[in-house]
Amino acid sequence: MSKNLRTYLNQVKKLLPDQIKIVDKEVEPEFEVSAIIEKLENQGESPMVLFNNVKGSKIPLLINLGANYDRLALAIDSDTKNIVFEYGKKEQNRILVKEVSTGPVKDIILKGSEINLNIFPIIKHNAEDAGKYISAGPTLMKDPDTGNQNLGLYRLQVQSKDELGLFINPANHGFLIGEKYRELGQKMEVAVLIGHHPTVIMSSVSKLENYGGELEVAGGLMGEAVEVIKGETVDLRVPAEQEIVIEGIVDPQLTRDEGPFGEWPRYYTGRGERWFIKITAITMRKNPIYQTVMAAHDEHNILGALPIMGSLIRRIKAVLPTVTNVNLPLSGGGRVRCYISLKQHSDGEAKQAAFIALAVVPNIKHLILVDDDIDVFNEKQVLWALSTRFDAREDLIMMKNCIGSHLIPTAFDITKQKHGNMETKLIFDATRNVTPHLNGKPFPKMARVPVEIVNKIVPEEYLKECTKNFEE
Amino acid sequence: MSKNLRTYLNQVKKLLPDQIKIVDKEVEPEFEVSAIIEKLENQGESPMVLFNNVKGSKIPLLINLGANYDRLALAIDSDTKNIVFEYGKKEQNRILVKEVSTGPVKDIILKGSEINLNIFPIIKHNAEDAGKYISAGPTLMKDPDTGNQNLGLYRLQVQSKDELGLFINPANHGFLIGEKYRELGQKMEVAVLIGHHPTVIMSSVSKLENYGGELEVAGGLMGEAVEVIKGETVDLRVPAEQEIVIEGIVDPQLTRDEGPFGEWPRYYTGRGERWFIKITAITMRKNPIYQTVMAAHDEHNILGALPIMGSLIRRIKAVLPTVTNVNLPLSGGGRVRCYISLKQHSDGEAKQAAFIALAVVPNIKHLILVDDDIDVFNEKQVLWALSTRFDAREDLIMMKNCIGSHLIPTAFDITKQKHGNMETKLIFDATRNVTPHLNGKPFPKMARVPVEIVNKIVPEEYLKECTKNFEE
Repeated sequence: MSKNLRTYLNQVKKLLPDQIKIVDKEVEPEFEVSAIIEKLENQGESPMVLFNNVKGSKIPLLINLGANYDRLALAIDSDTKNIVFEYGKKEQNRILVKEVSTGPVKDIILKGSEINLNIFPIIKHNAEDAGKYISAGPTLMKDPDTGNQNLGLYRLQVQSKDELGLFINPANHGFLIGEKYRELGQKMEVAVLIGHHPTVIMSSVSKLENYGGELEVAGGLMGEAVEVIKGETVDLRVPAEQEIVIEGIVDPQLTRDEGPFGEWPRYYTGRGERWFIKITAITMRKNPIYQTVMAAHDEHNILGALPIMGSLIRRIKAVLPTVTNVNLPLSGGGRVRCYISLKQHSDGEAKQAAFIALAVVPNIKHLILVDDDIDVFNEKQVLWALSTRFDAREDLIMMKNCIGSHLIPTAFDITKQKHGNMETKLIFDATRNVTPHLNGKPFPKMARVPVEIVNKIVPEEYLKECTKNFEE
Repeated sequence: MSKNLRTYLNQVKKLLPDQIKIVDKEVEPEFEVSAIIEKLENQGESPMVLFNNVKGSKIPLLINLGANYDRLALAIDSDTKNIVFEYGKKEQNRILVKEVSTGPVKDIILKGSEINLNIFPIIKHNAEDAGKYISAGPTLMKDPDTGNQNLGLYRLQVQSKDELGLFINPANHGFLIGEKYRELGQKMEVAVLIGHHPTVIMSSVSKLENYGGELEVAGGLMGEAVEVIKGETVDLRVPAEQEIVIEGIVDPQLTRDEGPFGEWPRYYTGRGERWFIKITAITMRKNPIYQTVMAAHDEHNILGALPIMGSLIRRIKAVLPTVTNVNLPLSGGGRVRCYISLKQHSDGEAKQAAFIALAVVPNIKHLILVDDDIDVFNEKQVLWALSTRFDAREDLIMMKNCIGSHLIPTAFDITKQKHGNMETKLIFDATRNVTPHLNGKPFPKMARVPVEIVNKIVPEEYLKECTKNFEE
């Protein structure tokens, strides 16, 4: 039995039963689904939810799968504590895809006039989104130079029953591949992959060297080869266990108005002229499950952060083996802020990690380096290091006019008067000096109660309820 | 009945019964008490604890009173949400002290050979502290120019049965008063005040204009005058409801080795030559309660932060009435990091708040300005504003060679080779532009689900347990 979305859902049901909920009640695709998720998020809750009855569709909708690290850890057979390290390790151990001749994704094949996106429970996520969006459909395409398949996660706007607006961040590999087709004067075949084992969508966000390799990463993360099968109308190999595949053609000479859409920084940004997909076929399982990501909310931030953290630790480790952990915290939308811990052996060494991270992830704007006694997933500890082990005069580096994210409202263009792709990056080196420095002394010790005494304490053996009345 | 420590303890017992615990078991003053508090803190618990049986003393020990904002809110008759605003307001409405002729602090009077600090359950807090420290004894002294009484919270090291090392941060008013006596060639009378209604110790940390006024602030915070009575051996008016008063003399020409001591940044710092108190009398209640602050732990940070936040909002409001809240978060030890929210009407206006804050609180090193839609007590929100509404090129101000805190390990002197009082300050202006800017447009809106739909959602009406088995 190959791993797929269903094997994963059964696993969650068994091991994290409180984290999967069902809604049988009929709900509106426009805002009722997303309002439920936002309300839960406001209450600090993050279950994944399967809506069985979205008005206008017979297909169930799965949302919020990626909204917490426990569930993503389960998907890569790790625990939450070691998730970044494990992701990086498994991303390294890629497994080649395995071609098969039949698979459930071919249960139903729709072509020509049968193509109709309206059969799916596609929702409108946020109040001022330009329309309904497919937000959990990584898009497969082929590098025209090598023939390698590249998978990336881009937003897809429903523009008609057989057309999808396609917006790719110009810093992404998918955009550069599209540009190759445009320069060649050719059309680009694509396949949008909806609903599979979560490692497939995670792999589409990984930061890999060169074009392609994502489905091999998904294999590494799952621990088994992704089975692929020939597309119906495109020369691409699509996963055989996929719930839904949308095949189509992009003519990169043509664009259309697309956006706005609530993006990961939690703002509406990005209206403009973009490519679009003309759908040529839809193939799917008999009773498919449609999946979406809750855009501009926790799921968007968390699902997007883990693969990048995993890629980062792998790529930093290749240069600096003493890196111990990486976090892209929610406070930075899982992209903007980056905390890296490491065991530093020479003064200045920590910055090597910063250089790699900035090179690999253009979205990182504020990068904080800390020693390995700091837990990068404990934001209070990271900021405490910044408060007490960092002085800006020597430890802050500002880099003007770097490429960043156009989704950040303050990003600018070269004129500084227009919105654009450029941002100012900061490296905060909050590691302690390795060599004795001020007064020729080592960095001071933390003030703690002797640890051997604290370890022996069982508070319940001491504390009693206060029944005393204090004489006034 | 005047308010005092006992009326407050009865109030906590009644209104926050889970937050006060008793320990009857005998405990060691060296590390057993502090180990229990550290263990609780590591578990995320912060009760105040009354130890009835500290080895070597018949007097009970109260610790951790100031370790959470709920209890401090109760002390100033506020709630936790409005605590900063209320503190600032009450600090403004000072009530003059009221002189009385008798009071419980005179129940027992010890002089001459009867003076012995060893009767008190004074503890050693952290592993490498130089000795036992009184950490909850604000020290009263008189400005020789005006005769006004000044109260400040300084660390006091037990150096013999009748001598206390006295370390005052050179940026504090108490230090400047001591310097006046030194220049006059006179000795300085002091009174150390231990155990009263929490507003007394809070007032000693307030940031007030000019010398003195703290006991009048305590009155304002309590809503009634602090009753004071003549000292036995010093010409000072001490609170009549105090548990314990230690009277003494400082000769500011003389110093002794003092420290190290685990301080609020959670490092050992500050060994050096300091003044000391020669005790001339101890006066106290019949069955006094001795109080200490858990140094270099949450209580130290929180109890120290609230009065400064209250003073800050009051003093910023005097310049910029649109300030909405101030937080000195635990991530900065309640001193180093400062988050200020305000409703900005003109671009650049927010920085006025920063200037006041930096002038009033030398310990502030990293100051973040945010709009009033951000909750400054929600660190994730503050950092999200920094991630998406701030670009360092235009919004970061670095100020080198400012006076800061010598307790911060990275603080330096003018040579940059020695530890000292100087730090580099940063202002991060993470407010949105008021005037339309990039592309001539207003700052973008946040992406949210329509609020009127979210407000109507009751998740329990939708969500059901998942009992479905997913066919694989």
